[in-house]
Amino acid sequence: MQATSLYLPVQERLDGVVDGLKEMAKQRFPLLSQLLDHVFSAPGKRMRPAITLLTSNFNDHDEALTETMATAVEMLHIATLIHDDTVDDSAMRRGRATVSNLWGDNAAILVGDFIFAASATLVCDTGNVRVIKRFAETIMELSSGELQEMSDVFDPNQTMEQYYDRIYHKTASLFTTASESGAILSGLSENYVGSLREFGYNLGMAFQIVDDILDFDGNEQEIGKPVGSDLANGILTLPSLIAKERHPNNTAIADLFSSPGDREKLEQAVAMVVGACVLDECYAVATDFCAKARSSLLSLPKNPSRDSLEEIIGFVTARRV
Amino acid sequence: MQATSLYLPVQERLDGVVDGLKEMAKQRFPLLSQLLDHVFSAPGKRMRPAITLLTSNFNDHDEALTETMATAVEMLHIATLIHDDTVDDSAMRRGRATVSNLWGDNAAILVGDFIFAASATLVCDTGNVRVIKRFAETIMELSSGELQEMSDVFDPNQTMEQYYDRIYHKTASLFTTASESGAILSGLSENYVGSLREFGYNLGMAFQIVDDILDFDGNEQEIGKPVGSDLANGILTLPSLIAKERHPNNTAIADLFSSPGDREKLEQAVAMVVGACVLDECYAVATDFCAKARSSLLSLPKNPSRDSLEEIIGFVTARRV
Repeated sequence: MQATSLYLPVQERLDGVVDGLKEMAKQRFPLLSQLLDHVFSAPGKRMRPAITLLTSNFNDHDEALTETMATAVEMLHIATLIHDDTVDDSAMRRGRATVSNLWGDNAAILVGDFIFAASATLVCDTGNVRVIKRFAETIMELSSGELQEMSDVFDPNQTMEQYYDRIYHKTASLFTTASESGAILSGLSENYVGSLREFGYNLGMAFQIVDDILDFDGNEQEIGKPVGSDLANGILTLPSLIAKERHPNNTAIADLFSSPGDREKLEQAVAMVVGACVLDECYAVATDFCAKARSSLLSLPKNPSRDSLEEIIGFVTARRV
Repeated sequence: MQATSLYLPVQERLDGVVDGLKEMAKQRFPLLSQLLDHVFSAPGKRMRPAITLLTSNFNDHDEALTETMATAVEMLHIATLIHDDTVDDSAMRRGRATVSNLWGDNAAILVGDFIFAASATLVCDTGNVRVIKRFAETIMELSSGELQEMSDVFDPNQTMEQYYDRIYHKTASLFTTASESGAILSGLSENYVGSLREFGYNLGMAFQIVDDILDFDGNEQEIGKPVGSDLANGILTLPSLIAKERHPNNTAIADLFSSPGDREKLEQAVAMVVGACVLDECYAVATDFCAKARSSLLSLPKNPSRDSLEEIIGFVTARRV
């Protein structure tokens, strides 16, 4: 399934967003232009800006505003990826070298800051203080989610509650804002705004859970990283948390966490999780979030954009290998 | 001269800002609280938030708004220092270990992001889109100034124009915003807002030039870093730029820049700059910016806050050793 076919009702406007990004790479000195050009021209699913445009399609409104918002949402996502790749020391993303790999960590820190700020500046052009504040809060949530993950690593007592809290902050927060902001800026009633916020939240939670399942279920080529990389990095996600609950006396994960980097213990811990046959249960949890996202859409008038939003929900679970 | 005596007309409100920072360090998980507590409780001159409070003192207004703004200005300054120290690999700042030193670069990147976003969120509480946008633009300017410095390092052909552009972005931009935002949020006329923007700009330029002179004029204990550290890092500032103009055939700087890290060449380059007797000329440039800052204040009604702003100008040049 091609992600692009999902965005049909807003394809032209989404192309405008992508063109806007390229335009923004023209800056006052070469290093900054090169950095921005590298990250803004990278291919991406553009799922978050598409959501902003689609959720704005339930009301006539000033489309320049929601296009600006969608551009800011994508820029925020890109800034987050740059800092995440720097923190995680990732050399590649989607087949291209990362900024930290090509220009070093220092340039990556500063250009990430620049793009965070540029995205916030764009949102100011909407003139809507509620949306501007929600946007700034989202940047707080994203960075605090990453910090929380950092503080939890290699702690075998990470809880399910911490997990859900963390994935809201690091992932669902931006999906929520992408969805809610399109609704607010197109002047929808609070009822509809609430429905689309719920949609974004539930879609984001499902998206991250599927990502966490694929870390056990995919193969290295499909998911772009070694199987079990979350466990290797000391992070418990839904599959390992459920497996641990199921087998409280199995010490494979605790053993790995007390010897980070031990390959054999990593294999044993991954085998424990996969062997516990919990992945179907995890998919059921993701499917449950998807069902909530779908039911949030039902209150909205049926139109091609609502159909697209529904298809995006399907796309999230269809990522199952 | 104690910086605090300068702030007399706003001392109580400035204490409120400092208390507000401490309050903000209470967060939802221990690592984040510890990080914020470390950076928010560090002593500082608090010059930027004091300027915001002082420039708001020419009109009756909702003082909670300008206190919020002043807090955001100080937080933005703190976030910038955290990322700068990470980029520069600095172990200490004002006698305390830096975040990157104590918790590592990754935590420093993320908590810096969090504080940038938290400061922007606070500014949203002013409800003033003009100020919010100016604030977001300031973050862009700060990070692009640092990136520009990075792109210029060890280039012996850095120009005076690039220098002034860079110090506006990395330093004067935030002084300008600190000053202008107090004026806007207290409802001053555009005339006065313009005067206070000019005040902030000129003060900030003078401040950075004096800093750059002290890099040659101070001793290690007074300035907290080795003499000539800018040259050692490949950065040309006003003293070295004027010295180079004065002695176009002296290759000491070019020699150093082609062998970064060479101690002997560094000493020769520093000796060349100091020997060129350009520091007085640099102070004259700083004094000229100070004079412009002082003349911007003249259009404002005379009151204790105007006196304080004038004293702050004096404080900037009095830093001369």
